[in-house]
Amino acid sequence: MLLQRTEKIYNSLGADAVFTTADDLRFYLTGFESTFGCVLTDKNGTTFYTDSRYLEAAVNKLEPQGITVKEMPRGVRPADLIKGYKKTAVPFSRITAKEYLAYSANSELCDSTAAFSAAMTIKEDSELAAIKSACAITDKSFMQLLGRIKEGASENEVAAELEYLMRLNGASGTSFSTIVAFGANASVPHHETGDAKLKYGDSILIDFGCKVGGYCSDCTRTFLFGDDGKHEEFKDAYKKVLEAHMLVKQQITDGITGGQADAIARDCLKKYGLDKYFTHSLGHGIGVNIHEDPRVSPGSEDILQNGMVFSDEPGVYIAGKLGIRIEDTVTLDGGKAVSLTDSDKNLIIL
Amino acid sequence: MLLQRTEKIYNSLGADAVFTTADDLRFYLTGFESTFGCVLTDKNGTTFYTDSRYLEAAVNKLEPQGITVKEMPRGVRPADLIKGYKKTAVPFSRITAKEYLAYSANSELCDSTAAFSAAMTIKEDSELAAIKSACAITDKSFMQLLGRIKEGASENEVAAELEYLMRLNGASGTSFSTIVAFGANASVPHHETGDAKLKYGDSILIDFGCKVGGYCSDCTRTFLFGDDGKHEEFKDAYKKVLEAHMLVKQQITDGITGGQADAIARDCLKKYGLDKYFTHSLGHGIGVNIHEDPRVSPGSEDILQNGMVFSDEPGVYIAGKLGIRIEDTVTLDGGKAVSLTDSDKNLIIL
Repeated sequence: MLLQRTEKIYNSLGADAVFTTADDLRFYLTGFESTFGCVLTDKNGTTFYTDSRYLEAAVNKLEPQGITVKEMPRGVRPADLIKGYKKTAVPFSRITAKEYLAYSANSELCDSTAAFSAAMTIKEDSELAAIKSACAITDKSFMQLLGRIKEGASENEVAAELEYLMRLNGASGTSFSTIVAFGANASVPHHETGDAKLKYGDSILIDFGCKVGGYCSDCTRTFLFGDDGKHEEFKDAYKKVLEAHMLVKQQITDGITGGQADAIARDCLKKYGLDKYFTHSLGHGIGVNIHEDPRVSPGSEDILQNGMVFSDEPGVYIAGKLGIRIEDTVTLDGGKAVSLTDSDKNLIIL
Repeated sequence: MLLQRTEKIYNSLGADAVFTTADDLRFYLTGFESTFGCVLTDKNGTTFYTDSRYLEAAVNKLEPQGITVKEMPRGVRPADLIKGYKKTAVPFSRITAKEYLAYSANSELCDSTAAFSAAMTIKEDSELAAIKSACAITDKSFMQLLGRIKEGASENEVAAELEYLMRLNGASGTSFSTIVAFGANASVPHHETGDAKLKYGDSILIDFGCKVGGYCSDCTRTFLFGDDGKHEEFKDAYKKVLEAHMLVKQQITDGITGGQADAIARDCLKKYGLDKYFTHSLGHGIGVNIHEDPRVSPGSEDILQNGMVFSDEPGVYIAGKLGIRIEDTVTLDGGKAVSLTDSDKNLIIL
């Protein structure tokens, strides 16, 4: 299965070699997590170069799958590995300028970014299974968290509790730094989780996700910690954000662009004069990386296709007042959206 | 204080502008955490460009410190911001080849990497304070963890518990994925924490760290979960790794190279015929990044200086048998090593 990935990318590029050192692409090609390594594919096959720290584990995992594992010889730089190839495909979006200049001295270069993106955006069954596991843990942990939220807890404590639950439920870690925002703190879409203490009547926005088998989930829920009777505007906006969120799931299909998907939510909020408060994109692709293709944003011409995984996350942010975001990880299957995170989105009042 | 950082780097480079989009360098220059932003310094001062998600928070935090905050206009790419400057310094080690090619079309480029590295390796008092806080939480959480380790717990559960404790004690997150390795699993220096269950008599290796205020800590402890009487070789090797670890702290001083520091530990282990099992570098710089300059590895010519922070982490790994690593985060102060993580390193037998 892994060899098919390297072969597909190699065959699509028409270069003499495909070479990468990038963490995410290396993981995609090998399924092996490491902080250093190079993957080189040429007409003879695929070789994974790594250092002594990873050698034993890499040999055990990759050689049975047909990938040759070699220790990176002392004094050999990654650029040295492409010497002798007339044309080498490397990801211009991942290598540094320093690497580009070093590689250029040893081989003619072409950009492999689009080939990786095309392969990585359409998930294989095993990749979807990992994402589904991460999403299931995300949902389960959120429901467990609800019973543990107490008045006086800090944003950091709630984040710690949720991350702990995801870990205990089987995640290898978070897919990004958990955002917990109480009350008006949520009006900053990327609020830095801090020491604010939870009060009766606060709204709570939690944007969180975890990793399983190297793949990410992403989910946001906004809810109330008690109803102090001052939430008419919040409740009204919540309904409209949820309407936009659900409309996207109902209307998207394979073949539309990321820009068209974004417009479904934006037009819905526009009916209510709320589109000016929807200050970010509808979504982003999710996989090995928490942010990857397809772009699901205004004007994006990326075509949504069956097997892609991305977020549906409209929001409304009124500075100093309120912030609401409702997000699920979704996939397209048979032309329809399937929600992979799917805990209750009716307004929860604890 | 922040403006001094930008000015120092600007003045050292002799370019018309210093420009960066890199997460770590942007954080160093602004102290502001974000997933998108550009910092531009020219003779008129420093401007931080970001998007709507971060605008409110960035204005509140940076404008009082003399850094101008602007929203990145729609349709403007980072490369557009350096148009009109004859020569622009950008970090060749951080920008991608794609960015390099786009930037090159708009300005003559020079590399700012070394200037950032020179500034970032010598920590200011406020940076040291953040690292010390992270290290104190690391120590405290480890001591709390010891009382909670139970037979039958999995590596993942022990990691989850430790990460939870660090979070509760005030960390914003981990500085890298926690490594927990039971028994012979520790012979892989970067073991992937998994589902192995703890048995009486197992050794436990834990490599962990957290972040406070954007700065990292790094620590490794190896200890025994009960003594089943089969640990003579382990105990003997432990003593020797600890001897190497302590010898480094006694002997390093400002002015020696990273290679000389590495040789202190390597020569010590060589006396016992164990150097062939010490398969990685003695250490690495620690700061905004968990791995940064100075390089503390064989042959490194980086000069260790007062105010630098790096790891002292000799280890011995015998495949399929045992793995021992003892690591502290240390700084050089007045020519002497000061241990910033410093929980007990005598062999613990739970």
